[in-house]
Amino acid sequence: MKKRSLPLSQVYRLLEPGPVVMLTTQNSKKANVMTMSWHMMIDFEPPILGCVVSNRDYTFDILKKTKECVLSIPTVDLAPIVVKVGNCSGKKIDKFEKFNLTQVESSCVAAPLIAECYANLECKVVDTTMVNKYNIFIVEVLKAWVNPTMKNPKMIHHCGKGVFVVDGKRIKLPWHLK
Amino acid sequence: MKKRSLPLSQVYRLLEPGPVVMLTTQNSKKANVMTMSWHMMIDFEPPILGCVVSNRDYTFDILKKTKECVLSIPTVDLAPIVVKVGNCSGKKIDKFEKFNLTQVESSCVAAPLIAECYANLECKVVDTTMVNKYNIFIVEVLKAWVNPTMKNPKMIHHCGKGVFVVDGKRIKLPWHLK
Repeated sequence: MKKRSLPLSQVYRLLEPGPVVMLTTQNSKKANVMTMSWHMMIDFEPPILGCVVSNRDYTFDILKKTKECVLSIPTVDLAPIVVKVGNCSGKKIDKFEKFNLTQVESSCVAAPLIAECYANLECKVVDTTMVNKYNIFIVEVLKAWVNPTMKNPKMIHHCGKGVFVVDGKRIKLPWHLK
Repeated sequence: MKKRSLPLSQVYRLLEPGPVVMLTTQNSKKANVMTMSWHMMIDFEPPILGCVVSNRDYTFDILKKTKECVLSIPTVDLAPIVVKVGNCSGKKIDKFEKFNLTQVESSCVAAPLIAECYANLECKVVDTTMVNKYNIFIVEVLKAWVNPTMKNPKMIHHCGKGVFVVDGKRIKLPWHLK
């Protein structure tokens, strides 16, 4: 897996467009991955984001306990696996093994990076006060990686029920900071 | 403006893909609109979402006080106006007038719908406990409208600095509820 460090100040440019992400946790048994679309940026630098993980998900208790995860951003070619990952629970199976996803060692957290994804963000949970009421975990990105060999990566955005919109053309409009 | 009521159970299908939205508030002086990309779904029905509105924005105090807003989802043809709306403050100008956006009366809130947008969501703020620390407003969608005359609407997703990715092709993959 080729990986290049991405400055933390640039992380919002990956997440603000709202792509589907894969969230990996690690407990004493194994690494486990789920798919997630309910996330938003909260601050630029350090990059802080909110993530909604259902308390019905196997990931919920692990994330609450270990307070670490990796957010991996897949491209459209990985969409069939992204859906399969989202449609089964890690309680019963090893999803990395079942779906042939390749674990790569992280630098700051126990959970692994996913070699097949364009971007990998090593995160720690920094606030759990909204977990009980809304299932919202506030996480900080500690380290960000992108794969420089993937040119013009196309992300996917979930419209519900297995329908995804794929990144189309990029446009640049006149823009300045307020 | 043609508008069709959208069942609240379907609102997440508009927001989960992460499009740029326009957020309109109304105070005693005027309606004011800003652009926003930092939002996420929190629950399906009633639709609850989190929105980050900077405390430097003119909207912030109005939203905090009136606890109401309309979230309007523009299509790509509106992108030049979306950027302009996001690059000036309502403190000094009337953006609806300046950018020729058409106000349409809402059914549940004081803030108006925007005729030029594909979807309009009438919202009330239901939780402000995260406003001071994170600028997060928790809002509930009370009423949702879409424009049935806009076929195959293409949304835009902000990648930062005036770069947007436009909705590309839609794909449907085998999917079932866990």
